[in-house]
Amino acid sequence: MARAGRRPGRTGTRERILAAARELFGQRGYEGTTIRAIAAAAEVNPALLHHFFGTKEQVFVAALNLPIDPATVVPRILDGPRGELGQRMVRVMLEVWRQPDARASFLALLRSVASHEDAVRMFRQFVERTVLERLAGALGVPKLRLTTAAAQVIGLALLRFVIGMEPLSTADEEEIVQLVAPVIQYYVDGRGPSRP
Amino acid sequence: MARAGRRPGRTGTRERILAAARELFGQRGYEGTTIRAIAAAAEVNPALLHHFFGTKEQVFVAALNLPIDPATVVPRILDGPRGELGQRMVRVMLEVWRQPDARASFLALLRSVASHEDAVRMFRQFVERTVLERLAGALGVPKLRLTTAAAQVIGLALLRFVIGMEPLSTADEEEIVQLVAPVIQYYVDGRGPSRP
Repeated sequence: MARAGRRPGRTGTRERILAAARELFGQRGYEGTTIRAIAAAAEVNPALLHHFFGTKEQVFVAALNLPIDPATVVPRILDGPRGELGQRMVRVMLEVWRQPDARASFLALLRSVASHEDAVRMFRQFVERTVLERLAGALGVPKLRLTTAAAQVIGLALLRFVIGMEPLSTADEEEIVQLVAPVIQYYVDGRGPSRP
Repeated sequence: MARAGRRPGRTGTRERILAAARELFGQRGYEGTTIRAIAAAAEVNPALLHHFFGTKEQVFVAALNLPIDPATVVPRILDGPRGELGQRMVRVMLEVWRQPDARASFLALLRSVASHEDAVRMFRQFVERTVLERLAGALGVPKLRLTTAAAQVIGLALLRFVIGMEPLSTADEEEIVQLVAPVIQYYVDGRGPSRP
């Protein structure tokens, strides 16, 4: 049922843009797709795309219905004392993934990645450009260390929220932060964590 | 084409057992399925199942075509000085997943888990019973720490072998071992790793 006062056709336009974006990102990867190309495929003005979504990154987040928006998450991880970066990264991750729809999004993402090599490339480029390179640049940490830290956080989300592995699945959030934050801090600092 | 000298019907029997096993594991989970029930569903003698596969665990590995056999992997991780356990766990994981067929198995497993809640339960129970509980028992390490170590190793395999995230994907194996082993050792020992 259309909401009262809504301009007719607006929802249809948004959906058409997102469908075109999904197709192009899949075909050309994240890097090979431009706002201009999506606008052309959806037969709208590029300015309308910017108006609806902002950046290419945000079109991607909306098109793939991702629970994580790097434009929000990356600054939250970076903002604060460097010695507490591990804590912030684990906390932000736990917060994002405990949202009601996040598990369904994670499952859809896994299905897509497990079924299409195009989806693998698309997500890989997206995470590299919008998360890893920004964090590595801002922190001056080698990308290998940062990618391995990401592996810890992603593996944790997979076992806690998707697989439901016990006792990780029901463990207290603060206990997980205390346990895992020193590991992220180790990757970032290149020094061993103190006993938690 | 049947191999010369092979007893007729033998391959058919093996396939019938594995198909019955897949169905029962999916329906009843790993714990709720017995060798006896699989034999009954496949209409063979339970002794034949033991003869073909050994234990229920090995039936599961064969039925799901897993690249990891816990009966082989767990002793290899445990066998050696405790202070080098982190190194062994990372090395064994890298070795298993670099086998030619391992990536296809990992993708099939992800597809299955991302599409069926039954598959989630089945794999969760299998990993808990055959890997995590054995390691936790043998090492006297709390299950939460061990599960979080598993999250690191699984996340690493996902990004290196499935997603192909750089520079993790092409990094030297020994460099990854040196970087990640202290983390596993930290989870096992409850002490911070030395600078790698």
